Amino acid sequence: MKLSELAELTFSAIESGSPDLEISGAAGLDRAGSSDITFLANPKYTPQIRDTKASAIFLNEGVEPGSNDVAVIRSKDAYLAYTRALRAFHPDKPIDRGVHPSAVIDSTSTISKDVEIAANVVIGRNCNISPGVRIFPNVTIYDGVNIGENSVIHSGVSIRENCEVGRNCIVHNNSTIGSDGFGYAKDEEKRWVKIPQVGRVVLEDDVEIGANTAIDCASVGETRIKRGAKIDNLVQIGHSCTIDEDALICSQTGLAGSSVIGKRVILAGQVGIAGHLKVGDDVVITAKSATSHDIEPGKVISGIPGFDNKEWLRSTAAFRRLGEIVQRIRALEKKVS
Amino acid sequence: MKLSELAELTFSAIESGSPDLEISGAAGLDRAGSSDITFLANPKYTPQIRDTKASAIFLNEGVEPGSNDVAVIRSKDAYLAYTRALRAFHPDKPIDRGVHPSAVIDSTSTISKDVEIAANVVIGRNCNISPGVRIFPNVTIYDGVNIGENSVIHSGVSIRENCEVGRNCIVHNNSTIGSDGFGYAKDEEKRWVKIPQVGRVVLEDDVEIGANTAIDCASVGETRIKRGAKIDNLVQIGHSCTIDEDALICSQTGLAGSSVIGKRVILAGQVGIAGHLKVGDDVVITAKSATSHDIEPGKVISGIPGFDNKEWLRSTAAFRRLGEIVQRIRALEKKVS
Amino acid sequence: MKLSELAELTFSAIESGSPDLEISGAAGLDRAGSSDITFLANPKYTPQIRDTKASAIFLNEGVEPGSNDVAVIRSKDAYLAYTRALRAFHPDKPIDRGVHPSAVIDSTSTISKDVEIAANVVIGRNCNISPGVRIFPNVTIYDGVNIGENSVIHSGVSIRENCEVGRNCIVHNNSTIGSDGFGYAKDEEKRWVKIPQVGRVVLEDDVEIGANTAIDCASVGETRIKRGAKIDNLVQIGHSCTIDEDALICSQTGLAGSSVIGKRVILAGQVGIAGHLKVGDDVVITAKSATSHDIEPGKVISGIPGFDNKEWLRSTAAFRRLGEIVQRIRALEKKVS
Repeated sequence: MKLSELAELTFSAIESGSPDLEISGAAGLDRAGSSDITFLANPKYTPQIRDTKASAIFLNEGVEPGSNDVAVIRSKDAYLAYTRALRAFHPDKPIDRGVHPSAVIDSTSTISKDVEIAANVVIGRNCNISPGVRIFPNVTIYDGVNIGENSVIHSGVSIRENCEVGRNCIVHNNSTIGSDGFGYAKDEEKRWVKIPQVGRVVLEDDVEIGANTAIDCASVGETRIKRGAKIDNLVQIGHSCTIDEDALICSQTGLAGSSVIGKRVILAGQVGIAGHLKVGDDVVITAKSATSHDIEPGKVISGIPGFDNKEWLRSTAAFRRLGEIVQRIRALEKKVS
Repeated sequence: MKLSELAELTFSAIESGSPDLEISGAAGLDRAGSSDITFLANPKYTPQIRDTKASAIFLNEGVEPGSNDVAVIRSKDAYLAYTRALRAFHPDKPIDRGVHPSAVIDSTSTISKDVEIAANVVIGRNCNISPGVRIFPNVTIYDGVNIGENSVIHSGVSIRENCEVGRNCIVHNNSTIGSDGFGYAKDEEKRWVKIPQVGRVVLEDDVEIGANTAIDCASVGETRIKRGAKIDNLVQIGHSCTIDEDALICSQTGLAGSSVIGKRVILAGQVGIAGHLKVGDDVVITAKSATSHDIEPGKVISGIPGFDNKEWLRSTAAFRRLGEIVQRIRALEKKVS
Repeated sequence: MKLSELAELTFSAIESGSPDLEISGAAGLDRAGSSDITFLANPKYTPQIRDTKASAIFLNEGVEPGSNDVAVIRSKDAYLAYTRALRAFHPDKPIDRGVHPSAVIDSTSTISKDVEIAANVVIGRNCNISPGVRIFPNVTIYDGVNIGENSVIHSGVSIRENCEVGRNCIVHNNSTIGSDGFGYAKDEEKRWVKIPQVGRVVLEDDVEIGANTAIDCASVGETRIKRGAKIDNLVQIGHSCTIDEDALICSQTGLAGSSVIGKRVILAGQVGIAGHLKVGDDVVITAKSATSHDIEPGKVISGIPGFDNKEWLRSTAAFRRLGEIVQRIRALEKKVS
């Protein structure tokens, strides 16, 4: 691909270098080879530009490439431009149309002719598999499941009764969509009585679910992951939660039941969200934090339980010296008495 | 179902409304339709009674329904009564008796005629599958496994060598029962030597295991989950642990090896339990807490490391103001000197 | 096995007891039967020696067995000696050579004749399965995967495109090797654009991966788990991480992308490691701790965020009394004013 094509594709402008320069791949500063394009997003890595072998680089406005005679493409967002370049070099593989003879598909299900269904996939009753869908081996789809156009279900995934997967979704390996919510009532003898979990999970369009993640169905009603939300590996989404559009939920985060996560919220790794609460749009909760209260839109929250991130930074700085602080109080008490 | 039948079934009494009122389902206050029964357990939601479309409601003693002319059923425990009603409307599906021809079952195993074994299930040598068992697709059962009456094994589950599953158990999708414990000794060159893990896991009757959970076998002996214990998704149970009856272990909680969790203990989400310790009966450990010490029966514990929940609440309240507290100490020091 | 053989095998010396004593197994102090050998590693359990039924015991130098007339074998490291004895009693099962007829293997892949491939295994294009490999049922191996000699892949595992598994590795059930890293750029409309994840995962020799663990491939390049590293259940390894030799990563720990974990590092349970950082050789991070900074070799780190373990112990001790400490400050302020 020519540099000029890459610039056009990424809505960027060539600042230096030949428009006819041939670029054959994209990679990070340290990995890029001599025919690759690279990028700088974090100013911390600016010194690495000097050493990169890349022949072109995406740079944000105002960033100087230094001594390296690398071709420069200016972008509003170098990281986004790089992502688009990488996508151009690695387009999605077209489906390998067909149903493997070892797949077991109930005759009541409707399977488009334009699907790829691999070996040992099992599909139950009354399902609907849309055109462009790719299902990898050893996937189990229970009764009544719909899978929308161009979605990809990786090996080992289970999709439970009546769940719905939208268009252009990806579900990575060994994840579970629609397992029973964790709900019990205590009986007169203090034993647990299971509350039926007869709801379902809906993944809207453009949702991606990582590997080994579990999303529970609602007891009654639905758990809903809205358009464009992205969920990482080993995440727990409890019954009846709603994850709003473009939210990002990082690995090992867990949500108890019935919570609502707003648009574009970022939950970093290993975060915990208690049940029945509301996290407003554009909130960021930093890694390993937790909340058992609602959070207003736009806040950045840290700690267990979580509070304002800046206050938390002050508190944790003081916490490190807490042993010494206690000694200072003791000294004061001595002096004063 | 008539209101009178529901009352009888749930050991409750009709306070207002016709005993012949027809109820066709059960749902929460906000979801219930006009022929549903609902419930109020948490007083916080009392105002919602006014707006519910339900035609009947389970209420605890002393709770007033307000202006709504909904039929009232009085219960000792409205949540338990609702659970029983929901169960009546959603009885367990009877098994669809038969073994799918694609299942691969070793001839040395004993399979009851009254089982449902789905497509692509693999069962090893010398297993015993009891009447009423349902095994969903793509399950792998290793050699020497026993599964008791009426248990349900969901798709993608692996049950390792010699494990035992009791009666009326449910194991959700992609969980692993009996994988090797994580045990190594360090050799003379500081490399890890694997300690053989030749024990097993026993799930007693009425145990439920969530999705994507891992329960390790013992090195020698057994890991045991006792009658009625409930374990959520993505939980880690280390080798040789014992979980006593009716314990409740919430999502993403992890137990290192050889710990003993008492009867009716509740471990909330993302809790950590170190190895070789004893958590007494009826202990509650709140979300994201951890303990590396034994805990006496009946305690409520929070924090990392965990201590008394009330003290912890005071400490965390102070922690939020720790930056300010340090300034107050500085001011005091100035004044005193 | 004779006591003398066990002593030789474990590089230990018989101190008391007949060299011809027949030992038939190995187990812990409390579990050992009358023909077993046991061990004492933790002095805390010394009193249990009195009650053990074992007929022989591995003891470190200087430890007295007390009144029990058990045969004593002296070892430099009793735990290591016990491990070796246990391994002698439980040697790895030889493979049951053959490929099950239900396995679906692409004709472009090279499968050694000396392998055991179980029912419903699916292997894609251009893979290479070496001698001595055992693959349990319902495993899915994508295109271009190499598996080295004598490695064991347990049921339900997925190994994604182009990954490499070294020799003598074990991957436990339902784990995912090589799922997409969690990487997105934000576009002009604040929607997430997926960054292609076209790298791979390399497990070097002697690596063990627990159950339900997820290891992401790199976007470009590789995620590498080096020789002898051991990873527990439900662990998250983000894209482009490097885990160096003999590191030990306990259950439910998570690593964001591009971090480097040094040799012999121990990350205890539920630890969190932020992205793009370096944890030096021989570091220990205690359970539930986290770091977002590099850590120098040899440090022991605790807390969120983590700092020196000894300081942290002082701080947490003070934290427990933080409510009281605030009252003491208040009292001081009163006195001083």
